Amino acid sequence: MTPRSPFKIPKIPEMTVRRLSVYTRCLQQLEEDGVKTISSQELAERFSFNSAQVRKDLAYFGEFGVRGIGYYVAGLKAELQKILGLDREWPVALVGLGNLGAALFHYKGFARQGFRIAAIFDDDPAKAGTVEGVPVLPLADLPREAKARNLQIAIVAVPAESAQAVTTAIAAAGIKAVLNFAPGRIRTAKDIRLKNVDLSIELESLSFYLAQGHR
Amino acid sequence: MTPRSPFKIPKIPEMTVRRLSVYTRCLQQLEEDGVKTISSQELAERFSFNSAQVRKDLAYFGEFGVRGIGYYVAGLKAELQKILGLDREWPVALVGLGNLGAALFHYKGFARQGFRIAAIFDDDPAKAGTVEGVPVLPLADLPREAKARNLQIAIVAVPAESAQAVTTAIAAAGIKAVLNFAPGRIRTAKDIRLKNVDLSIELESLSFYLAQGHR
Repeated sequence: MTPRSPFKIPKIPEMTVRRLSVYTRCLQQLEEDGVKTISSQELAERFSFNSAQVRKDLAYFGEFGVRGIGYYVAGLKAELQKILGLDREWPVALVGLGNLGAALFHYKGFARQGFRIAAIFDDDPAKAGTVEGVPVLPLADLPREAKARNLQIAIVAVPAESAQAVTTAIAAAGIKAVLNFAPGRIRTAKDIRLKNVDLSIELESLSFYLAQGHR
Repeated sequence: MTPRSPFKIPKIPEMTVRRLSVYTRCLQQLEEDGVKTISSQELAERFSFNSAQVRKDLAYFGEFGVRGIGYYVAGLKAELQKILGLDREWPVALVGLGNLGAALFHYKGFARQGFRIAAIFDDDPAKAGTVEGVPVLPLADLPREAKARNLQIAIVAVPAESAQAVTTAIAAAGIKAVLNFAPGRIRTAKDIRLKNVDLSIELESLSFYLAQGHR
């Protein structure tokens, strides 16, 4: 394994990053199943990937395969976790504590990957206080709290009509990464990484298969 | 444009289907911006895709480009929507009306793409009744309602410990496509299309960029 860590990596396609997350989960499954090593071919077959794609995705970051053996499952998983920034804890701001915000707050998957919701922002005075020890604060407190709590990532779970203003406030508070659940286009400064979640994409992969089956 | 509709298409990679959804959204944006035609090169540049990948993805379904012109934006969008099954309405069952279920019920994106939540299932008697005209029923009613309402897709928004039993009940009711938000591995019959949503993958694309920037 020769990770390329000391060098600046080239621009990585978004789909490659997504696949790294998927590979990490597959390696986790393999580890749970007691698999120690796996070839890119087997990895591809077992999880219906394209093996050339797997090799290409990994090649951005170094040479992880070992001739005649393939990949060491635990080692590759650890490397990918490091590349994805999953080897540390990220303090996250959650903005909006409606149904979606509450659901995201209780979503087990985030904490498991090191994403810790450290502060919640909602201007509804009825929601002020704490939820499971996490403070619920007015949005005006965001700049101060972002610094005090070292908030690195913000999750936007507000109605569409507030999403632009909220995102602008997040950027002004110095938070550089935003995960937005609100529909519609949002504009941000170039140095802000904005990721829009579109849950209907997930349903479309199902309607695709149903539609193809109906032919 | 020569779509390959009368023929059975080959096995399509899941990532290709996902990209078709993304392309459809990009074409929608282009249409709103008044763009009539676009080359695969321009499409790729504007949305940071790989143009060879765009051509390869589309080639599974036919020849959509016109030499010297590129793609007709409105025409390609309509073709992709048809391929993705977005040219019709899909009656959807929502199972679980906790915070996440309620958030998904109110999620605007589903209805816009033709996914209509036609019935909600939750065994909590306090939730029985209707929400905005949609009935909230006990899970035991699923087999009858699936037939009566022609439910084609089910969304699972129940706690992890109930997800396997709920998915089994959905399959027994004859619903062939399941979108599952509960964490953990779920087993289904071969003819059921199960799609697991893992929201932490979305956050990982942000931690990746933050981690790379910290180097």
